[in-house]
Amino acid sequence: MGLINHVFNADSLKKLYVSNLGIGHTRYSTSGISELQNCQPFVVETLHGKIAVAHNGELTNAVRLRRKLMRHGVGLSTSSDSELITQLLAFTPPLENDDTADWVARIKNLMNETPTSYSLLIMHKDIIYAVRDPYGNRPLCIGRLIPVGDMNGKGKDNSETEGWVVSSESCSFLSIGAEYYREVLPGEIVKISRYDVQTLDVVPRPEGDPSAFCIFEYVYFARPDSIFEGQMVYSVRRRCGQQLAIEAPVEADLVSTVPESATPAALGYAQKCGLPYVEVLCKNRYVGRTFIQPNMRLRQLGVAKKFGVLSDNFKGKRVVIIDDSIVRGNTISPIIKLLRESGAKEVSSFSVSTIVMG
Amino acid sequence: MGLINHVFNADSLKKLYVSNLGIGHTRYSTSGISELQNCQPFVVETLHGKIAVAHNGELTNAVRLRRKLMRHGVGLSTSSDSELITQLLAFTPPLENDDTADWVARIKNLMNETPTSYSLLIMHKDIIYAVRDPYGNRPLCIGRLIPVGDMNGKGKDNSETEGWVVSSESCSFLSIGAEYYREVLPGEIVKISRYDVQTLDVVPRPEGDPSAFCIFEYVYFARPDSIFEGQMVYSVRRRCGQQLAIEAPVEADLVSTVPESATPAALGYAQKCGLPYVEVLCKNRYVGRTFIQPNMRLRQLGVAKKFGVLSDNFKGKRVVIIDDSIVRGNTISPIIKLLRESGAKEVSSFSVSTIVMG
Amino acid sequence: MGLINHVFNADSLKKLYVSNLGIGHTRYSTSGISELQNCQPFVVETLHGKIAVAHNGELTNAVRLRRKLMRHGVGLSTSSDSELITQLLAFTPPLENDDTADWVARIKNLMNETPTSYSLLIMHKDIIYAVRDPYGNRPLCIGRLIPVGDMNGKGKDNSETEGWVVSSESCSFLSIGAEYYREVLPGEIVKISRYDVQTLDVVPRPEGDPSAFCIFEYVYFARPDSIFEGQMVYSVRRRCGQQLAIEAPVEADLVSTVPESATPAALGYAQKCGLPYVEVLCKNRYVGRTFIQPNMRLRQLGVAKKFGVLSDNFKGKRVVIIDDSIVRGNTISPIIKLLRESGAKEVSSFSVSTIVMG
Amino acid sequence: MGLINHVFNADSLKKLYVSNLGIGHTRYSTSGISELQNCQPFVVETLHGKIAVAHNGELTNAVRLRRKLMRHGVGLSTSSDSELITQLLAFTPPLENDDTADWVARIKNLMNETPTSYSLLIMHKDIIYAVRDPYGNRPLCIGRLIPVGDMNGKGKDNSETEGWVVSSESCSFLSIGAEYYREVLPGEIVKISRYDVQTLDVVPRPEGDPSAFCIFEYVYFARPDSIFEGQMVYSVRRRCGQQLAIEAPVEADLVSTVPESATPAALGYAQKCGLPYVEVLCKNRYVGRTFIQPNMRLRQLGVAKKFGVLSDNFKGKRVVIIDDSIVRGNTISPIIKLLRESGAKEVSSFSVSTIVMG
Repeated sequence: MGLINHVFNADSLKKLYVSNLGIGHTRYSTSGISELQNCQPFVVETLHGKIAVAHNGELTNAVRLRRKLMRHGVGLSTSSDSELITQLLAFTPPLENDDTADWVARIKNLMNETPTSYSLLIMHKDIIYAVRDPYGNRPLCIGRLIPVGDMNGKGKDNSETEGWVVSSESCSFLSIGAEYYREVLPGEIVKISRYDVQTLDVVPRPEGDPSAFCIFEYVYFARPDSIFEGQMVYSVRRRCGQQLAIEAPVEADLVSTVPESATPAALGYAQKCGLPYVEVLCKNRYVGRTFIQPNMRLRQLGVAKKFGVLSDNFKGKRVVIIDDSIVRGNTISPIIKLLRESGAKEVSSFSVSTIVMG
Repeated sequence: MGLINHVFNADSLKKLYVSNLGIGHTRYSTSGISELQNCQPFVVETLHGKIAVAHNGELTNAVRLRRKLMRHGVGLSTSSDSELITQLLAFTPPLENDDTADWVARIKNLMNETPTSYSLLIMHKDIIYAVRDPYGNRPLCIGRLIPVGDMNGKGKDNSETEGWVVSSESCSFLSIGAEYYREVLPGEIVKISRYDVQTLDVVPRPEGDPSAFCIFEYVYFARPDSIFEGQMVYSVRRRCGQQLAIEAPVEADLVSTVPESATPAALGYAQKCGLPYVEVLCKNRYVGRTFIQPNMRLRQLGVAKKFGVLSDNFKGKRVVIIDDSIVRGNTISPIIKLLRESGAKEVSSFSVSTIVMG
Repeated sequence: MGLINHVFNADSLKKLYVSNLGIGHTRYSTSGISELQNCQPFVVETLHGKIAVAHNGELTNAVRLRRKLMRHGVGLSTSSDSELITQLLAFTPPLENDDTADWVARIKNLMNETPTSYSLLIMHKDIIYAVRDPYGNRPLCIGRLIPVGDMNGKGKDNSETEGWVVSSESCSFLSIGAEYYREVLPGEIVKISRYDVQTLDVVPRPEGDPSAFCIFEYVYFARPDSIFEGQMVYSVRRRCGQQLAIEAPVEADLVSTVPESATPAALGYAQKCGLPYVEVLCKNRYVGRTFIQPNMRLRQLGVAKKFGVLSDNFKGKRVVIIDDSIVRGNTISPIIKLLRESGAKEVSSFSVSTIVMG
Repeated sequence: MGLINHVFNADSLKKLYVSNLGIGHTRYSTSGISELQNCQPFVVETLHGKIAVAHNGELTNAVRLRRKLMRHGVGLSTSSDSELITQLLAFTPPLENDDTADWVARIKNLMNETPTSYSLLIMHKDIIYAVRDPYGNRPLCIGRLIPVGDMNGKGKDNSETEGWVVSSESCSFLSIGAEYYREVLPGEIVKISRYDVQTLDVVPRPEGDPSAFCIFEYVYFARPDSIFEGQMVYSVRRRCGQQLAIEAPVEADLVSTVPESATPAALGYAQKCGLPYVEVLCKNRYVGRTFIQPNMRLRQLGVAKKFGVLSDNFKGKRVVIIDDSIVRGNTISPIIKLLRESGAKEVSSFSVSTIVMG
């Protein structure tokens, strides 16, 4: 429990490196010791040995499923969807054998009970099953570990595979010496063993239902160098900015960004409009979730705590400022006020996700 | 997780004091984060609301029960008997109602599945059920909270009851302002509500089976001022010493104890023999479970680290030394050696529990 | 000891808010309990009451000064320059009175003993003395706390002053509701009381000596919105990029940055050359000082762990990449390699500080 | 900072075991980070290398000495007497040489400045100086480390010495394989090197002044197996009980103790009177300095939280109860009340230190 950098120190990693198979998931967790039980992977003992499950997503019918399981006499010890999924997998009527076909049946049964939303890794003995819900709501992709020596070299595509990695975001591959292999498809059940990646089945959506990839991955969750649906997130964001310039051009002296996820869109907008891209704000890196506002003064300061103002860059100018989204709408308005009081002649603002979602 | 004094600080207690019902259990736990899941009480969500279980004891048929539960599709997330008990209670086929009769049936069903050993507190809504296994292996007793003003006064027996407490050992009552009320009987199911203590049932042992109260409670687990089976532990220990004096008198100059649990027996032995009771060892309070023996010297020192020697008290004398038990037998022999090298003329030793168990 | 966000939690801040005067300094500290003694401010008891000193800089003649103090019989308990400064201030021969003139004499005496480098805050009773060494090596500036209501408003320059703040960098003022007032000059001794800021003296450098402001503040230490010597750091960095474009133009398709401190220079270079500014790298925020590289694979990966590659943005293009400085020169070369292997046609690189220092 | 068992874990001890010389002192410290600076040993850099000082005692003229040092320009960074002593040793006018004679002069100079109370260990290079103030207020004694193999054997007095240890209390020697060698005398300066223990000087008290050994060491500070002034503490305590029986005999049925430091006196009293020694209270080991009393009930309970009552042992009997001292007098009175309410017919009580000090 805690930040990754705190939990995985030299000692805890040393223990992990004796094994050659593992899964995990970083959750946004609320503080408090009681939440420790929600840490992933969720592990249960079954007649077929331990099952471990890592889960990204939220079950839309969790309440109903909890009641159904409890009606069968299963006591649930956490409030997490992950326990629910794990118990559902364990609860499937006892199978005669524990072979691949049984696992396909088991997972399809789960998909039947709860069609969305989840990307799952299920570890059992020496196999990992990677599963995406039929609507493809959460991302999941596969990378190939290649020898480091070959990694950046010409012979890369011919290299021997040293192992497989599965991740929500492909950006993580480069930093461990893996290369992007492919996405797990919506509804796909993939079996991953030491040397092999094998599609067991692809469960379709009900006819007529569209896929439902989470738009906020493109807008601000994902790192810009990740690839979803065959396209780099950065490129999607920049194209949104270009499209915005076509749909909503503004007479201005410069285009800027609310750092940092809106920067690709701002650069796209600026380029399409032929206006200079200029930085007007810089982030205060010391303002995080743990920032304390112990007195009236600091509580009133608002965005001035989060951003520094590069006033020399925009004094007397007309500024177009691009933000990544309007979730609560409580950030852009004080930023406009701050820029004007710091000398901007005019400030126009756009939120890119409005475009994306429109 | 951790020592009681560390876990229950001012902050954590403040949170507890808003409620008026609670259970817990202090386990001997091995270190390591994975064990946190074994902390008690064990809580599960059921169709009838949360059930919390605190459990003292070890199920003799735990392995078989685990397999049985898992065969019904319940995944178990810890290695603890307490989860087993909790899931067994939850797994009982759905009842039409959630009244007292259902709970009696539920607990009797549990007793049927696993006859020993456990003392249980089961909390559900505003009721606590206190249960002892039919063999009475682990102790459990009930105390009555009385107004502090009346507590040590004459009118004590007539005082209004402010609440009920249940404990493994009655010694805890005095220190929170409660008085001893009675023992929970072997096999008894007691329902405790705000003002009432009510016996729901007493499940008998199979005919011919004797009770099986854990002898080590008398020998050294319990605090001497606790009451089991109507007798003070201290008195039992002293009587053992007296009986030992009758069965095995020794010609000696003085009688002493291995502090501290053997002291009542040593005093009983001394009194019965008419020999003076004298202290020959004093405990080194800094030697605990966490004591580190980082070099050869300290590893070789043995009992000399645990005890100081009061040599003036026994130089040139014949010493009888009473210990509480011979569990591993690796303590008394070096103590005898230490006393002789420190000037004792002769050393005889007895272990009281041999008598008790014989 | 520790990160600011860890040390100053709600509880510790509550204790601070009862007072109205305080100093501190964030050091780069090595880990280990023994270093706690080097935490600032350094406080000593003297005949004139407590003196607290916060100190930014390194004394060039520390070794000689330590010997000198010890020869007078003062035992030093830490290895820090700050204790040295504090003891030098305390050691000044006893003064008849403790008035402003004494403190000027005391501080000038210190400047005489050690001309560089330090920016100091000395707290004594209800006064803070702000001092910069005559060479002006480390920055120091003063801000004025104004009522939050007035802060961003028109009447700001006429607002009542609510207090004074002194900081190495002016960027900190905005985020606490203060406005930039002025720099402390090289050699200046400033006395700050509740309502007043007063220059007591300005100690000159030896004739002919130039000032020696630390160039790395401009290059990468400072936050870009800070003001040194009357100019915004961001503007200096951008002008360096523009000057670089004049002195070393390159035929290329795009200009980019090694994020983040080189971005102003890259934008300046791009603008001057008339080339598009494009992002080619994104930072991996999880790689910090605490990042662990437990196996061969991760140790060999180098910059691929620190940066993600936005390959769509530069495939087949000629890239000019601007870095902030060449300190060890071990970053830019693997970045060039990484970009070329990710598809760049040509990569030219510049380090801005070479220009600055040239 | 913290309890010994917490501070000295396997890791920190491993670091210590590479050296062969060390000093330390366990203080009663108040909580809070600021107190860390008072941890011992106190170490300062001087022209003659590092000096480390461990100090037991309180300087009676500390305030005057602090002013004297500060008047010479030495800033003191802690509130501890130990820093004062260390700076006084460092402040001695520079000596021509750093030989034994210089150290004798240095320490005698210190004794001249502050005659009481302290037992000191001064570590410098490869020598430890052990010093007791001329009044002998705090104890200090020397032990000899002998080969563990020989330790409990016959040839013990002829064994080779493996090293020397110095301690406030001789009880610590047995548990590390050392044997008691001798006490450091009041005013004695002892030089301890690898193989040799040498008296450098014995500074006398002013004529007519008596020694002033702290009586509370005998009464309750010391462990009963420690030796002061040639006598075992346990024996002194028992003789006090015997003397009490002579001076103040009581008609009673039994004699008991407030556990644990009064037990020797109670046994002495019982034996002298010919009355049986019986235990009437047992300690609640969970009540420590950290015990929290979060509600009215627990605050009112008083001694009932600290002791269990062995009522079977004294019901209807006349009890003489012996306590170790009356410091605040707020313990014995509620104990008497508790015993009477638990069935004692009469309770007489004595405090042994009254006798000792009378």
